[in-house]
Amino acid sequence: MSRKISVRQSVMAADERHAAAIRESLRAKKVLMVNLIGSPGAGKTTLLEATLKKISTACGVIEGDVATSRDAERIAKTGTPAIQINTHGGCHLEAHLLQKALREFSVDDLDILFIENVGNLVCPAEFDLGEDFKVAVCSVPEGADKPLKYPHLFYEAGAVVLTKIDMVDYMEFDREGFWSDVTKLNPMATNFEVDSRNGIGIDGWIEVLERWLMEKQQ
Amino acid sequence: MSRKISVRQSVMAADERHAAAIRESLRAKKVLMVNLIGSPGAGKTTLLEATLKKISTACGVIEGDVATSRDAERIAKTGTPAIQINTHGGCHLEAHLLQKALREFSVDDLDILFIENVGNLVCPAEFDLGEDFKVAVCSVPEGADKPLKYPHLFYEAGAVVLTKIDMVDYMEFDREGFWSDVTKLNPMATNFEVDSRNGIGIDGWIEVLERWLMEKQQ
Repeated sequence: MSRKISVRQSVMAADERHAAAIRESLRAKKVLMVNLIGSPGAGKTTLLEATLKKISTACGVIEGDVATSRDAERIAKTGTPAIQINTHGGCHLEAHLLQKALREFSVDDLDILFIENVGNLVCPAEFDLGEDFKVAVCSVPEGADKPLKYPHLFYEAGAVVLTKIDMVDYMEFDREGFWSDVTKLNPMATNFEVDSRNGIGIDGWIEVLERWLMEKQQ
Repeated sequence: MSRKISVRQSVMAADERHAAAIRESLRAKKVLMVNLIGSPGAGKTTLLEATLKKISTACGVIEGDVATSRDAERIAKTGTPAIQINTHGGCHLEAHLLQKALREFSVDDLDILFIENVGNLVCPAEFDLGEDFKVAVCSVPEGADKPLKYPHLFYEAGAVVLTKIDMVDYMEFDREGFWSDVTKLNPMATNFEVDSRNGIGIDGWIEVLERWLMEKQQ
């Protein structure tokens, strides 16, 4: 058991060096990096599409998925440069994979680099990719019990975005309970409700991204 | 890299011995074991609640979650014996955890033991718990692209249950594409559409569970 843990720790430590190198490189280039994490189908790609249509700063997207390039293709249609990483079974992105992708993807002219992690509410929260902020993306149809059942991501998140808010009445979603649990886990996170398909709530989210960018570029 | 892989393999091999012991014990007791796997909020617990209210055979449930006992509490309200495993950060159940739970939970009088795995569409598919069947639980609001993006679970599944089918028109869900992709990945799986909240589609699913049970008890 201890051997298993020590190998896991050494693998994570090696990956932290990759994350530190990414962080240092993006600090020098003044590029803000935002790592979106949520369940499969939480609406991460749709949130990005809605954001990229409205935001005025230069963005790029790195998409993580077990298989297919569908999400990168969706993003490319907005005119934003996008690249896909396939993990072939891996349930989260790791910094060494990201570093490899960054060799093929120029961030020099970008203001914001979005990472869309593999759809998973558990493991991606544990891995530092060198990002400035992790963002938890949760959808109304998943149910209001997710923060307490999957707390680690919420501890780590700089912002929590609740998507598909148009479904709140249909799903008998306990909105007050959801936000109360989020605040208990992480009183510092900035919280949003959005309906990405109809562009609702996107302006407030973009304002925070721009504030984060301004703080980084100062 | 090869060291990382070999340790992973030896950890998995040790766990396979636990899985084999569980399988042998349930074979002797003629208890059917069904392992439900799907994203957070896919509707696994609600499917179980609807199933347990209608099924006439003796069932028990072991619930896997990162944190909280909420799902086991929901199941216990149906009058079905239930026990909760918390993985404290682990993104899937492993057979050694299940074996420990089975020491506190008598299956001697059961016909069917359901396992509800940690909400995750990736890793739980890789781990044998000694079950007779893995069942993929997917919900309409997650979107129709999930089988191709997370193929491993679908390769492994004895059945695929598409939940929250009442939302199919609202969500612009590509129903035909979803089932066509499922069938390409796994032409042998039995497929269901259900609306668990309203008990729709549950009878057909129960028929298959009872057929699986009959085959096991022959």
